[in-house]
Amino acid sequence: MAVTAQSEKSISRLRRVVIENVEPEVDGGRFPIKRTTGESVVVRADIYADGHGVLRAMVRYSPSLTGAWREIEMKLVENDRWEAQFEVSSVGTWRYTITAWLDSFRTWHRDFIKKAEAGQNVAVDILTGADLTRAAVERAIGADSQRLFELATELAHLPGDNQRAIERANHPDFVSLMDRYPDRRAATSYEKESAILVDRERARFSTWYEMFPRSCSTELNRHGTFRDCIARLPEIAAMGFDVLYFPPIHPIGRIERKGKNNTPNPTPDEPGSPWAIGSKEGGHKAIQPQLGTLADFKELQQQAATHGLEIALDLAFQCAPDHPYVNEHPEWFLRRPDGSVQYAENPPKQYQDIYPLNFESEDADGLREELRSVVYYWIKQGIRIFRVDNPHTKPFAFWEWLLGEVHRDYPETLFLAEAFTRPKVMYQLAKSGFTQSYTYFAWKNTKRELTEYFTELDQTPVREFFRPNLWPNTPDILNEYLQNGGRPAFIVRLILAATLGASYGIYGPAFELCENRPVRQGSEEYLDSEKYQIRSWQRDRPDSLKDLIARMNAIRRENLALQSDWSLRFHPVENEQLIAYSKTAKDASNIILTVVNLDPRYTQSGWTEILPEQFGLDMQGPFEVHDLLTDAKYTWRRGRNYVELNPWKMPAHIFRIRV
Amino acid sequence: MAVTAQSEKSISRLRRVVIENVEPEVDGGRFPIKRTTGESVVVRADIYADGHGVLRAMVRYSPSLTGAWREIEMKLVENDRWEAQFEVSSVGTWRYTITAWLDSFRTWHRDFIKKAEAGQNVAVDILTGADLTRAAVERAIGADSQRLFELATELAHLPGDNQRAIERANHPDFVSLMDRYPDRRAATSYEKESAILVDRERARFSTWYEMFPRSCSTELNRHGTFRDCIARLPEIAAMGFDVLYFPPIHPIGRIERKGKNNTPNPTPDEPGSPWAIGSKEGGHKAIQPQLGTLADFKELQQQAATHGLEIALDLAFQCAPDHPYVNEHPEWFLRRPDGSVQYAENPPKQYQDIYPLNFESEDADGLREELRSVVYYWIKQGIRIFRVDNPHTKPFAFWEWLLGEVHRDYPETLFLAEAFTRPKVMYQLAKSGFTQSYTYFAWKNTKRELTEYFTELDQTPVREFFRPNLWPNTPDILNEYLQNGGRPAFIVRLILAATLGASYGIYGPAFELCENRPVRQGSEEYLDSEKYQIRSWQRDRPDSLKDLIARMNAIRRENLALQSDWSLRFHPVENEQLIAYSKTAKDASNIILTVVNLDPRYTQSGWTEILPEQFGLDMQGPFEVHDLLTDAKYTWRRGRNYVELNPWKMPAHIFRIRV
Repeated sequence: MAVTAQSEKSISRLRRVVIENVEPEVDGGRFPIKRTTGESVVVRADIYADGHGVLRAMVRYSPSLTGAWREIEMKLVENDRWEAQFEVSSVGTWRYTITAWLDSFRTWHRDFIKKAEAGQNVAVDILTGADLTRAAVERAIGADSQRLFELATELAHLPGDNQRAIERANHPDFVSLMDRYPDRRAATSYEKESAILVDRERARFSTWYEMFPRSCSTELNRHGTFRDCIARLPEIAAMGFDVLYFPPIHPIGRIERKGKNNTPNPTPDEPGSPWAIGSKEGGHKAIQPQLGTLADFKELQQQAATHGLEIALDLAFQCAPDHPYVNEHPEWFLRRPDGSVQYAENPPKQYQDIYPLNFESEDADGLREELRSVVYYWIKQGIRIFRVDNPHTKPFAFWEWLLGEVHRDYPETLFLAEAFTRPKVMYQLAKSGFTQSYTYFAWKNTKRELTEYFTELDQTPVREFFRPNLWPNTPDILNEYLQNGGRPAFIVRLILAATLGASYGIYGPAFELCENRPVRQGSEEYLDSEKYQIRSWQRDRPDSLKDLIARMNAIRRENLALQSDWSLRFHPVENEQLIAYSKTAKDASNIILTVVNLDPRYTQSGWTEILPEQFGLDMQGPFEVHDLLTDAKYTWRRGRNYVELNPWKMPAHIFRIRV
Repeated sequence: MAVTAQSEKSISRLRRVVIENVEPEVDGGRFPIKRTTGESVVVRADIYADGHGVLRAMVRYSPSLTGAWREIEMKLVENDRWEAQFEVSSVGTWRYTITAWLDSFRTWHRDFIKKAEAGQNVAVDILTGADLTRAAVERAIGADSQRLFELATELAHLPGDNQRAIERANHPDFVSLMDRYPDRRAATSYEKESAILVDRERARFSTWYEMFPRSCSTELNRHGTFRDCIARLPEIAAMGFDVLYFPPIHPIGRIERKGKNNTPNPTPDEPGSPWAIGSKEGGHKAIQPQLGTLADFKELQQQAATHGLEIALDLAFQCAPDHPYVNEHPEWFLRRPDGSVQYAENPPKQYQDIYPLNFESEDADGLREELRSVVYYWIKQGIRIFRVDNPHTKPFAFWEWLLGEVHRDYPETLFLAEAFTRPKVMYQLAKSGFTQSYTYFAWKNTKRELTEYFTELDQTPVREFFRPNLWPNTPDILNEYLQNGGRPAFIVRLILAATLGASYGIYGPAFELCENRPVRQGSEEYLDSEKYQIRSWQRDRPDSLKDLIARMNAIRRENLALQSDWSLRFHPVENEQLIAYSKTAKDASNIILTVVNLDPRYTQSGWTEILPEQFGLDMQGPFEVHDLLTDAKYTWRRGRNYVELNPWKMPAHIFRIRV
């Protein structure tokens, strides 16, 4: 007993059926599970009762929080575990629960057949059956009611011939009609209803390109504009991306502005960091004038849409010292005893150019309404994807409220959580409503690390609420592997991200141009980082990875297996530098096996073990593996097959297995 | 969000700390965990918040359902997992929960030291510290308040010397006083309180002897009496038992009475089954006249107590057709369409001598009050242990209510659930309040079966609510191993039960006399079962196991390790017929290693691997193992040691490991 549930009243006297260990469920139903339209929810539960009666159980589900229930009957799997599944067909918040009851008709039917078959006198049992049928007449409607009345009458007048009685009891009409009108007055309803956050498909399958609009100018030293971005759309679309994400596009503060390579005291023409939001030109609802106007931005969105690209904006809820909020709403900021505003700190580091918002301020309500109005403002400008900067430095309850509001009003909106912090904090943010999450992928480079991490993300209940989005690089993260591994390292990380992650992204053009110089030895920051200065990229360099990226993203679009993470399975390879894993589309219609050489320096070879039954294939003979990167085809056999990968040619196979 | 928790209000705006994955907890706090007095509750939880503040967390606990909280501070273990423990010192229903908060003082202190050590100007930070201290002055009481006031004043006037400031901030007086008066206004309280059912020690450690009083007569063919039982007490006590359990002692029905070996139509002098309760002599509150009077029964209880024996009665909530309830409360029974009372069935089997009670009757309230009055009646006669017959055929909600009532009024009362049914049903009964439970032990005979089953019972969260009581035999179960294995098989099963189970029992004298004749081939029923007839046992047979049982039970009393199940650990032996396992008392003060030859026919030998560090011993050299059954002593070494066991001499070692 929970103490609070201990009163006599709370123990229902009629409760005979137990429903427990319900799956899927996040924290006992405290948070929603997540799906995209067209996916299924497989519901499982332990269901049992005292005694020996026959149980029936239904999953009840609804495509809204208040609508009527639909029902699907559960089946017993084994050891009191029951199962049923349904598909979620529309975006929004669905819900589900379970109801179960001891079925008096089914119990009678089972016992009656046993007794009749054992040759016992079943005269009284026939009367019991007739009583049950007459009770069902009352519950049935229309012709069913009439038919049940006839069946009850026939049953009551059956002569004592067990064989005929068995035939009558087993009549399919009788059984199916009785099943349709059960006596559910004493049904047990599971005490919880779990919510299902159903997103559009892009929540599950998305390909992101991050770019600084201000670096899009075609002329050296000119600040890029939204119009420059329009000129770049065909190239980005050709690479096969579907989300184009911009760092903040708002006015950048001048007070305490940072210069090149994060140095203090910049020259007046240095642009500052886009994450230092707000100046006299405006705050989170304004656009940095050098980028263009709101009309330009809308034009860019429309042009992007014609290329199949959706613009994602950055939500960075923090302020530069000259953000209008600082004067207009001093109550939203924490003050130090000397009257100054508290700037961001991670002692001994100090970030004087950033003022955090105080979510515990006296006017916490006013603050959160304002922040909601920021999101709604951009939604009204057509934005439906947000990348959220550092959500782990704002209260979880704030996100649960804000994302709940948006999901209610604009359920097609997606949020990517940029939190690189402790695992439980990242999971809590995902539970609080974020659609996708950045991951530790950038720091998982060995076979063991990758296998353990993606098994946790894709093969445990974590997957019910946490959707990984894999980034080999970001403006903040140039990992050691990329710094030291040269062009093959970029290819390896690209292929890993694009095949391990149904959602992945790159920060370009730094990525496709294999930019790998850190600001200093031991740092993951870029040298001459675009965070603090405009860069002019030579996009047509012959060693650009853009063609490979285009090929990779085409493979993703053409192969359903790569568009979801749940089927991920690792396969043994007898070489620690080689990693092999597969993804399989439903009913094995599409099977992709990826083998990657994690060593960017040397050719590696080894034997991988592939058993077709792991893909649900019943097959003993040879099968074709078709490398979608090189178009090479091989004949493989059940069991061990040889692979050899030269990182300077192509460090990976992406095999489609053809039956 | 659970759908019901989705309203805006329910998302506390100040909630910054998350408390989740709390252990121990049964079904998310729905049911109590179980302990006995003197045991500890180790509470663990994931606790974290947004941002980078320093957390503090307390386990709050109370020895009653309504009393004030005591608190103990939790410590961070790793990866946001926190822990604390407390001891439960009294019988009754305790409760516990967790509270945690972002500690403004500790956060300030950590950041202040970092900044001061980095040589930064901390003048404003000193003022912040002084403000925090002044706020604590308000919360503190008496001299603490005065001392904090002085410390705040000193702090506010510190000159800008970082070294002195660090010394002041780290002053133990300052830190401990500030810790004592934290600002907990924004603390997060875990939303659940879990109950702890704290029983007396016998709930954890008990040694049961089951006996039919009517077979205790010293004269052939005379019905035994309570007075005869008194004469047997010294012998039972000498074997070392502490619970003496009787099958039902109530009047036995005459209608449909069963004869010898469960045959119909007995002769008038056959006694019938004690589980067919009720006749014109009375029902569940009456005593079968041939056994004696209530006064005799009380005398027996008193005599038993002087021998350290506690009498346990059987609660079998069912009726013979001539039970007074059938006439006085026809509404408590289900009727068939022909007007007859529904007897017990397991189609095609029929039990015409047993009428089940209908817990869904119109007068369900009246029925359950009457059944409670039965329990309270016997409690008032001094009984505090009940073995409950077939609880799985009555609603779980009934048990939860009944046992909850008794635990509230007589918390020292123990209930043993006799349910041999599906595992989840047995677990649900244990959750509903049963103190101990029968197990599948009787059907776990191989090393693999025993290892898997007792690992599940003793090393998983099941142990929080399910206390196994191991029976090698019962009047219903004479397993194949005992039927075929002869005397060595009885010894093997005795030693397994007594060392694997802190609670175990035997049904005697059938057990100590190695009674092994089934009623027919393939049946687990005894031939000439005492369930249907009086038996006269030759208790002084020289091959009786009573001396070995006495030795075994003495070993249990003398070795703390055997009095609890939680420390059970299996050790490898390179022979499938040999099983080795240990139990260790707290702080390794007592270590018992048991090695059993499961083959009742042949000598078996093999190497067992023992690593002293598994018992918490830091030891590389040899150690002594002392066989408590034979008094032999051996010198063993870390790692592999040889064992050889002849079932016809002694099929087991019970080693005390001496350091």
